[in-house]
Amino acid sequence: MGEDTGTERSETQTAIMEATYRALCEHGYADLTMQAIADEFSKSKSLIHYHYDTKEELLVAFLDYLLDGFLAKVEETNDGDDPRERLDTLVDILLSGPEESEDFQIAMLELRSQAPYVEAYREAFAANDQHLVGLLADTVAAGVESGVFRDVDPERVAETILVMIDGARSRSVLFGSGDTVAHTRRAIDGYVRSHLVADEE
Amino acid sequence: MGEDTGTERSETQTAIMEATYRALCEHGYADLTMQAIADEFSKSKSLIHYHYDTKEELLVAFLDYLLDGFLAKVEETNDGDDPRERLDTLVDILLSGPEESEDFQIAMLELRSQAPYVEAYREAFAANDQHLVGLLADTVAAGVESGVFRDVDPERVAETILVMIDGARSRSVLFGSGDTVAHTRRAIDGYVRSHLVADEE
Repeated sequence: MGEDTGTERSETQTAIMEATYRALCEHGYADLTMQAIADEFSKSKSLIHYHYDTKEELLVAFLDYLLDGFLAKVEETNDGDDPRERLDTLVDILLSGPEESEDFQIAMLELRSQAPYVEAYREAFAANDQHLVGLLADTVAAGVESGVFRDVDPERVAETILVMIDGARSRSVLFGSGDTVAHTRRAIDGYVRSHLVADEE
Repeated sequence: MGEDTGTERSETQTAIMEATYRALCEHGYADLTMQAIADEFSKSKSLIHYHYDTKEELLVAFLDYLLDGFLAKVEETNDGDDPRERLDTLVDILLSGPEESEDFQIAMLELRSQAPYVEAYREAFAANDQHLVGLLADTVAAGVESGVFRDVDPERVAETILVMIDGARSRSVLFGSGDTVAHTRRAIDGYVRSHLVADEE
């Protein structure tokens, strides 16, 4: 839970990750090939093969790269030590995602749906998720500790928040309704107020 | 919203739908072919082609068949007119699903992830979803009307409940944790109590 933060990545590896992002936007997951990634990469295709033997291996590295991007964003907006503010920030970043194109979100939903069939993806998604559960749960635990939150189960609260975030994101990709994310943001807020916050109803 | 209830389906068509269910469990969506469905069907393959020109058309009919199965189950357990009990029943059925194998849930997640790429799937998923939103919202509206629920926006509440159900189901398929669904059931219960029920906290 957290041991995979800040993977060292060479300039070349980062460029490959950026090419993978563009190739996923362009082709989706099912039609993604090493060639499609090479087409988005300014250097030689053999460099991609040098770093990653298979598409699977490359995509596992890509999931790790996404997590690091998310963590960097969390780091950036580290707005103090108030657990409730911090929880709000985490939810905002997780729910809206980085500036992702819709095509990318569609490709990620597809990649996620392949996880039950591909052990390496499943493990990578699970590791990322455990990291996010940990971040949220630590924040909730800090709030319980300091008395701003009731004596709730931090991991359980983290899970419920992630259930709502995953549901909102997949529905908004599937049904293309921009309102779902905004409505869910308010529903999470209501959940935090009614379930967590110690001195409000 | 509801015009597609109780599609007339011949015995042959129903047998094709049952074969499709088994073929999806066996092969997943990506490897599903008309031949794979024919292999699960006791009659001639040409009968399948007589009814459904393409795999797409067949799967759209299959999504309609799933909705009908869900509605029949709701009908069966129609346990009176109390809106809160009725809402509980709907949530229970939606969240636990029919007695579906894990393989089937994996295949459905995969089919869902293809919806952004295939208009016919997208429309079928959206039509089913609108039907469920309608069912939940009507129940909430009845509760607001009778005073057991506060003056909430029924469609908004329906959407939030479906966000939680979708999130829980996809996480439970992806991470294989049996607890997610049970925890989410309790979180929805908490949401209903704190957000909807008029006379409780």
